[in-house]
Amino acid sequence: MRRRFDLAFDRLPAVTAFGGGHGLHASLTALRRITDRLTAVVTVADDGGSSGRLRAEFDCLPPGDLRMALAALCGDDHWGRTWADVLQSRFGGDGPLGGHAIGNLLIAGLWEKLGDPVAGLDLVGELLNAKGRVLPMSSVPLDIVAEVIGLDPMHPDEISEIRGQSQAAKTWGEVRGIRLEPHDPPARPEVIEVVGASDFVVLGPGSWFTSVIPHLLVPELADALVRTPAKRILTLNVQPADETDGYSASQHLEILADHAPQLRLDFVIADVDFAGEDRHLAGYAESLGARLVIADLAMRDGTPRHDPLRLASIYAEVFGL
Amino acid sequence: MRRRFDLAFDRLPAVTAFGGGHGLHASLTALRRITDRLTAVVTVADDGGSSGRLRAEFDCLPPGDLRMALAALCGDDHWGRTWADVLQSRFGGDGPLGGHAIGNLLIAGLWEKLGDPVAGLDLVGELLNAKGRVLPMSSVPLDIVAEVIGLDPMHPDEISEIRGQSQAAKTWGEVRGIRLEPHDPPARPEVIEVVGASDFVVLGPGSWFTSVIPHLLVPELADALVRTPAKRILTLNVQPADETDGYSASQHLEILADHAPQLRLDFVIADVDFAGEDRHLAGYAESLGARLVIADLAMRDGTPRHDPLRLASIYAEVFGL
Repeated sequence: MRRRFDLAFDRLPAVTAFGGGHGLHASLTALRRITDRLTAVVTVADDGGSSGRLRAEFDCLPPGDLRMALAALCGDDHWGRTWADVLQSRFGGDGPLGGHAIGNLLIAGLWEKLGDPVAGLDLVGELLNAKGRVLPMSSVPLDIVAEVIGLDPMHPDEISEIRGQSQAAKTWGEVRGIRLEPHDPPARPEVIEVVGASDFVVLGPGSWFTSVIPHLLVPELADALVRTPAKRILTLNVQPADETDGYSASQHLEILADHAPQLRLDFVIADVDFAGEDRHLAGYAESLGARLVIADLAMRDGTPRHDPLRLASIYAEVFGL
Repeated sequence: MRRRFDLAFDRLPAVTAFGGGHGLHASLTALRRITDRLTAVVTVADDGGSSGRLRAEFDCLPPGDLRMALAALCGDDHWGRTWADVLQSRFGGDGPLGGHAIGNLLIAGLWEKLGDPVAGLDLVGELLNAKGRVLPMSSVPLDIVAEVIGLDPMHPDEISEIRGQSQAAKTWGEVRGIRLEPHDPPARPEVIEVVGASDFVVLGPGSWFTSVIPHLLVPELADALVRTPAKRILTLNVQPADETDGYSASQHLEILADHAPQLRLDFVIADVDFAGEDRHLAGYAESLGARLVIADLAMRDGTPRHDPLRLASIYAEVFGL
């Protein structure tokens, strides 16, 4: 096989993927096809839906994105797929359990019982025979506070604050930046360790402000990402999601750099359609130390998501596999 | 080994145990030690606690006693015990999830997802690597209606009806009998089949009116118990529980016979202390066709429950092992 970027490994590369929700699900679905040394690090700032209700009741981490990451890594057999399917399914109706994902209840229950978020996630991973490990980016539940302009038509440049991921994700104002509360949450030691021991770290795709940027705002984690000897890959979305609607690919890089001025990148992976409209992208990537890798990554049916096999193919190329 | 009752098997005997709640847990904990061909058939009339709330929200079978039976059969290794422990543990607090056993939520979720109670229970059994199968006595949730006297001090002989297992179990009136609503619930075909193919069926121990008698009121199931070539064993409680407080061992047999006039028994197993006070017991057992087997079965610490090893020992003797 051609080793395009001249990297070589004794065994498959150790990869740590950062994100949350559907974006992380997409990157894990791709990465699991090309390595068996995979760790997912998941945002813990969700405050909506089933996760928000569990968080309100037990002051626990929001389990939803962690559950989705575990499901993406489920064992490649009937048992693994059955349990992933079960954990992803939700109770119907509008009673006390209505809308709760079964996996969220199981994870929250394990946390109540075991008292350790990582031990609970590891047990669910074992149940699923998961092809990798899923870790929370912090030990404590976090809140996202978004700085938004344009909410007041009389003062279009005035900055307002919107508190909470679920509110920030659907604002019709323009999000300029985010911060976390608490502002210096503890990282998980397992995460710091795995970042330092990775061959590649992969940021994105995902909701830019609520799933990608938050990782860079956990001080120990940002520091670990800056210091790691791993190659740093940023995967841009196929299209901007709601919260970065109208932002160019370059602007996505700019936002990232604004929130993590010290972070250098090695590769920026962009879809051909999204990147093609953006003359500044290669220059921006280069200014961050990165080579721009452009490919046709979108689903063949036009859905604005990454096609898992196309994404896997470009990761394999970047990894030199 | 001495074959006290002259029975012999090519392999370990096939045993089906009937009951609900803690009584069935005790008999399964004993029986799993002496056979690997074990089926539990569980009452589905509970309407209190976590089970009652799930039943009210989803009109599903009450999962609690089924969960407890599965936990009693969990695999004899770290994995099986860990998951049994997890499924048995409950959410704290008084929020929407407070008091729910994790296993109840998982089972109810599987039922919602799979649409088949037995398929859901089999999957949890597989998760636990359970040493046997757990089946519900009926496909539909049932209500117990208890006939009680003594509720009205002005009319101490007047019969009142109390509806619901949770209310019936704690009445201070004297329960004279029960009936089910609906009065002719469907049995599970898997139960009818296993009863016909068993070497032994074991009724009790357990709350007499709410965990033991109900099995005899499901017409197809009562019929299967009457017709089976299996030996029929009745295990009396170490002490009468609340709902039969003050009833002698003989009276327990009398109540059973009242609810299932056609049922013959082969063995009645009684604790030495409870039986010892009852001069009529051997005669009553004989009138039902049964040999009375008396042994010291109570917990050594005086708790009014069966000691699992003592109970296992008497079952092994009765089975001729």
